Amino acid sequence: MTANYLGNREIGIRETEPEPPGPGQVRIAVAYTGICGTDLHVLHGAMDARVRVPAVIGHEMSGVVADLGEGVTGWRVGDHVTVMPLEWDGTCPACLAGDEHVCQNLTFIGLDSPGALQRLWNVRADHLVALPPELRLDHAALAEPVAVAVHDVRRAELAPGDRAVVLGGGPIGALIALVARHVGAEVVVVEPDAGRRATVAGLGLAVLDPGSTDLVARVTEWTGGAGADVVFEVSGAAAAVLGATELVKVRGTLVVVAIHPEPRPVDLQRVFWRELRILGARVYRRADFEHAVELLASGVIPADRIISRVEPLTETARAFATLEAGQAMKVLIDVAATGAEA
Amino acid sequence: MTANYLGNREIGIRETEPEPPGPGQVRIAVAYTGICGTDLHVLHGAMDARVRVPAVIGHEMSGVVADLGEGVTGWRVGDHVTVMPLEWDGTCPACLAGDEHVCQNLTFIGLDSPGALQRLWNVRADHLVALPPELRLDHAALAEPVAVAVHDVRRAELAPGDRAVVLGGGPIGALIALVARHVGAEVVVVEPDAGRRATVAGLGLAVLDPGSTDLVARVTEWTGGAGADVVFEVSGAAAAVLGATELVKVRGTLVVVAIHPEPRPVDLQRVFWRELRILGARVYRRADFEHAVELLASGVIPADRIISRVEPLTETARAFATLEAGQAMKVLIDVAATGAEA
Repeated sequence: MTANYLGNREIGIRETEPEPPGPGQVRIAVAYTGICGTDLHVLHGAMDARVRVPAVIGHEMSGVVADLGEGVTGWRVGDHVTVMPLEWDGTCPACLAGDEHVCQNLTFIGLDSPGALQRLWNVRADHLVALPPELRLDHAALAEPVAVAVHDVRRAELAPGDRAVVLGGGPIGALIALVARHVGAEVVVVEPDAGRRATVAGLGLAVLDPGSTDLVARVTEWTGGAGADVVFEVSGAAAAVLGATELVKVRGTLVVVAIHPEPRPVDLQRVFWRELRILGARVYRRADFEHAVELLASGVIPADRIISRVEPLTETARAFATLEAGQAMKVLIDVAATGAEA
Repeated sequence: MTANYLGNREIGIRETEPEPPGPGQVRIAVAYTGICGTDLHVLHGAMDARVRVPAVIGHEMSGVVADLGEGVTGWRVGDHVTVMPLEWDGTCPACLAGDEHVCQNLTFIGLDSPGALQRLWNVRADHLVALPPELRLDHAALAEPVAVAVHDVRRAELAPGDRAVVLGGGPIGALIALVARHVGAEVVVVEPDAGRRATVAGLGLAVLDPGSTDLVARVTEWTGGAGADVVFEVSGAAAAVLGATELVKVRGTLVVVAIHPEPRPVDLQRVFWRELRILGARVYRRADFEHAVELLASGVIPADRIISRVEPLTETARAFATLEAGQAMKVLIDVAATGAEA
């Protein structure tokens, strides 16, 4: 059984005959698949040029090894696994420089090729990341977004004692804040939506409403007049970008995490004047993914509070509707469950 | 005798009674003072809120120690010197972090306090930088803009073999290109003005006309499909900023050198996608200034080709008119000369 994006904002369930794993592939019995903003973009048709319908999407997942294709070593049936959904060519200048995760010809499993919204999924063995057996499989489905947060925090070179501002309190913003706190930084999240602020506050994080707070004054006071060491731009909003440079200390860092489909006005005078550093941060390296699994297994990421809702595979359309309504932090699909079981 | 900005786009010459150097000050007999784009901004009234008229401006200079104020040690009458025109407070967070050159309360000698367009100039001894006696004083007047270029190249962490693009072929762009070449990078300058292109080409630098060249195609071909390691934005033009991110390799660097008085649209999607790094670069540290003097003394910077014209102090207004007409690379004022002598 697979959930499919059919075009025209439609999700459909299809029964398909599972293929055996090919050489070098592993068949995974998918346990849980998270859906995210990118998947919503697909549903909205924004990525129709990239995905081929009917498209099995989904790139945040956990599962159990069910079968091994020819030549696969290092994995056993029953192993708990997640998938790092990046495919690089290994030959472009970025790959040759060791930056495979930003390969010039990177493709993304679950967008450019079939993803995890299916019960039995064949994946090349080198995309697998091991999960410790004690990590719950629903929690493990957060590995991919946590890996994004780990990568962003590492890209920022955030250090213990640093003060960081996270602009945007959705799942990625909240996870960045949690990872930043774990490395010893003091963190404040900025989020205009009251419901999201409540969720972020429930994680024990400081959170500000930009609509009722003078952010520059607050951050200046908080940092003893210096400004923040690091600001993470996770909102995607033009106004946030323009304001972000006001919050950063001399020689501080602004990390661009969000997607900005249009060029955004940036205060380059401020960038020059304070010798700011702006860094793009995209996806993750394998080490980020492995560290994300550790953070979930050790409970640093309180997965139960991030997961708002779990729906069976047959109710994938309802899960997308919940996510779209903005009421949820993270929605998981229980891929093994049927509607009747759930 | 001093040359003064009087407001209303006027320059006037005034005879003033020189004051003796105060405690900790050195009296410099100014030899040459260069004028630059910032001085033109002053003349145009753009900095009227900052300068007090009549204002003795000028911050690129060379001279000879003429007298020592009380308590000054380490300098002798007759020493050749230049001045690093930055005053920091030493107490702000940026200073305490060791980044005095971007002090949160930095003031600039020649803008916020009297500058070098005067024959006898009293300056605090700790602003002096020694010049080797064999370095011609007219050449030495380039130390300040060369220090800017040295700082920009260091900020970019440019390495031997790197490929760099310099957007803008004015004095700072040309000097950045020369310093970048000296550190072993391959460099191309992009400049729309034909006269400036000719000057840049005369320095032995590769130069492209953005009006008749597909820059992305050219840079992509030049870099084997990767993109430039570093792009220096020295033009101040909005279109250059928007195009700059297209030229940078994955994880490459864009250095913001120019003044951008308005926020500029920046392709943050590209910044994210390629994990680009954007760095502001402002003025210089003392080590940059000292290295600039070395580069002038060793002939790495062909000062004769950068200096377009020398005018006596009495003809400062004419010097500004030459600069404003865009016909000159660098115009110096021979501060010691009278009009009759010149």
